[in-house]
Amino acid sequence: MVNSAVIGYYTTQFGELWERSLMDLLKEALFGALTETGLQIDQIDAIFFSNMLSGVLDNDLHLGAKISEIIGQNIPIFRTESACASGGMAFHLGLNYLRSGSGKTVLILGGEKMTDYDLETITTSLASAASEEEQQAGLTFPGLYGLLAQSYLSTFNYTEENLAHISVKNHYHGSFNEKGHFQNQLSLQQVMSSPYVASPLKVLDCSPISDGAAAIVLTVDANLINKSPHKIKVLTSQVATDTISLKDRQNLLELKATKIASEKAFKACGLTPKDINLVELHDCFTIAEILALEDLGFWEKGRGGAEAVKQKTRFDDNDGLIVNTSGGLKASGHPVGATGIKQIGELFLQINGLATSRQIQSCNYALTHNVGGSGGTAVVNIFSNYED
Amino acid sequence: MVNSAVIGYYTTQFGELWERSLMDLLKEALFGALTETGLQIDQIDAIFFSNMLSGVLDNDLHLGAKISEIIGQNIPIFRTESACASGGMAFHLGLNYLRSGSGKTVLILGGEKMTDYDLETITTSLASAASEEEQQAGLTFPGLYGLLAQSYLSTFNYTEENLAHISVKNHYHGSFNEKGHFQNQLSLQQVMSSPYVASPLKVLDCSPISDGAAAIVLTVDANLINKSPHKIKVLTSQVATDTISLKDRQNLLELKATKIASEKAFKACGLTPKDINLVELHDCFTIAEILALEDLGFWEKGRGGAEAVKQKTRFDDNDGLIVNTSGGLKASGHPVGATGIKQIGELFLQINGLATSRQIQSCNYALTHNVGGSGGTAVVNIFSNYED
Repeated sequence: MVNSAVIGYYTTQFGELWERSLMDLLKEALFGALTETGLQIDQIDAIFFSNMLSGVLDNDLHLGAKISEIIGQNIPIFRTESACASGGMAFHLGLNYLRSGSGKTVLILGGEKMTDYDLETITTSLASAASEEEQQAGLTFPGLYGLLAQSYLSTFNYTEENLAHISVKNHYHGSFNEKGHFQNQLSLQQVMSSPYVASPLKVLDCSPISDGAAAIVLTVDANLINKSPHKIKVLTSQVATDTISLKDRQNLLELKATKIASEKAFKACGLTPKDINLVELHDCFTIAEILALEDLGFWEKGRGGAEAVKQKTRFDDNDGLIVNTSGGLKASGHPVGATGIKQIGELFLQINGLATSRQIQSCNYALTHNVGGSGGTAVVNIFSNYED
Repeated sequence: MVNSAVIGYYTTQFGELWERSLMDLLKEALFGALTETGLQIDQIDAIFFSNMLSGVLDNDLHLGAKISEIIGQNIPIFRTESACASGGMAFHLGLNYLRSGSGKTVLILGGEKMTDYDLETITTSLASAASEEEQQAGLTFPGLYGLLAQSYLSTFNYTEENLAHISVKNHYHGSFNEKGHFQNQLSLQQVMSSPYVASPLKVLDCSPISDGAAAIVLTVDANLINKSPHKIKVLTSQVATDTISLKDRQNLLELKATKIASEKAFKACGLTPKDINLVELHDCFTIAEILALEDLGFWEKGRGGAEAVKQKTRFDDNDGLIVNTSGGLKASGHPVGATGIKQIGELFLQINGLATSRQIQSCNYALTHNVGGSGGTAVVNIFSNYED
């Protein structure tokens, strides 16, 4: 298969950006990524664009043509939506586009504008990713993940403290990420004393509502890869889906889509979890990071609660596996359409030594994990250093 | 490039289907297409799903996972949205997926549920595909195409009657399509005496608000193609975008995205418009069929108004070019997410001799043309008989 590489990355600030529109953010990310790579817009063959909520929140659809207007080009622009996995799906489709021979270089762009709305509106809008029955029952995403957390804690005899350590660790990482939504560290006591959102999840177990956009440049052009000072190699991208309704799952202790996508990913590139030392995963809630590390094969099922307490997945204190150096969704924020792209961008920064004060020492293989809804969609990508 | 073929097609009834939900319709189309091909669901490697409005109208997103629930499979399911071109874009991405080697057989599925809402809600929701400025000015899609029609009629000295003939012709075709929304013929007098929606467009110049779903099975599996009794060969699929705002276009007499996509398509397969004798194109309004036939290269710019009057693109009375045997969007209906897929399905029926009372005599090469918004996105696909 033809070699493909990410050769550039740009992210806007993530946070409550009340003075910026979605289009402002997308424009900044799009041209930011071009500037990083030194490419002109006419060197981009297509754009894969991810966004979840602009239709629901702002009656704003067909953003492909609106992006065409910004760039003054008539290239194909595809929008994909798979709830919070939209960014990962856009990357996957962009990669397939290149591998099909339809183009040489594409831009993967994602963004979301979420903080201009009251909390009820935004929570209800996000619940659009849940099943009709779950929505009618009044379940929101904290509620759904609260059920998963209850099941996990009771089955394996853990307490809410086991969850809280994930938040402490991710906020520690986030304190080194100047583009992140939150840059404050949290103590265990702070997380534990925060109010409940959906028991056993407290507000500091939950990723925030954020604005932001991110873009990467992906290419199969060997000359361009060769000339690029910064790059990471794409080894594989895999997608799986699962029933969205929790009631239809055989097992609430695992997210099957994550399991299937990661098994396919490891098989496709001939690696095992032991080979990976850097992961950006989908910690929309603290329980989600624990489930993900188990379902991706890094920790045995049920061990995650105990492992979380050790906090040994830090960039500066670990046993060989480092998780969410960006601060994850929890600290760096979760502007839905941007998240899956920012995850890849974080690996790009780390592998190329561009991660400033949170730079890890070395990385052979790295993985991203992006989830839609309560596990209905999962995208797992594996990357490496680019060796010519 | 590896050969790819459409090997099955199913469409639900299009129309005002108040007793059916979107999921009902999608399920019928999905399993209908499988039944047509004799395939089991586990022979499908991925689904490409198109829908425009379920988020906006029904707070219903992440439909990939909801489709996974229906089929009980964990395969990748991608949703794409490019307004009324969503179906064509899903097909394009599905084709690229197969050509990248990621799978052998995919299902392209699209649907829309539009008739449960009052006209103001649906018109405003559809306007989500227009620019913010156009929306704020109160422009709806009839308004935008009304401006295009005014420009065309005044530049080339035509009258509203030139437009009306398109509607008469498409309703004639529609009278032979038992799955279509409208199966009544219309006289020129009926079209001309219908009330204005946005001058010069009258209600009978406009495609209707419809419910419906459609699905096709697309494969690169040579054995499967060989065994399939019915098939059409995919020669090329091309996409282009353009500024969505009419005010930013250099020329209101053509849809540039259509022009670019069709030029790329003809070049890619070494054909010219003269080689094509069957077209399903995007006649969301009567003016759109005239512009499309010019921009696709079948008629010189400005000739369309005169050609329309001749009504010589009928399946049973033509000069070698037959247009919209399904009845087009005008008569067969326009459930947005389904439209681009139904267009391909109509060619599949015609080329395989399955088009019952509207069957054409023969077809060498056929083309579909699917548009988003007022021309912001265009997808052009070319097909042929499948010769082993």
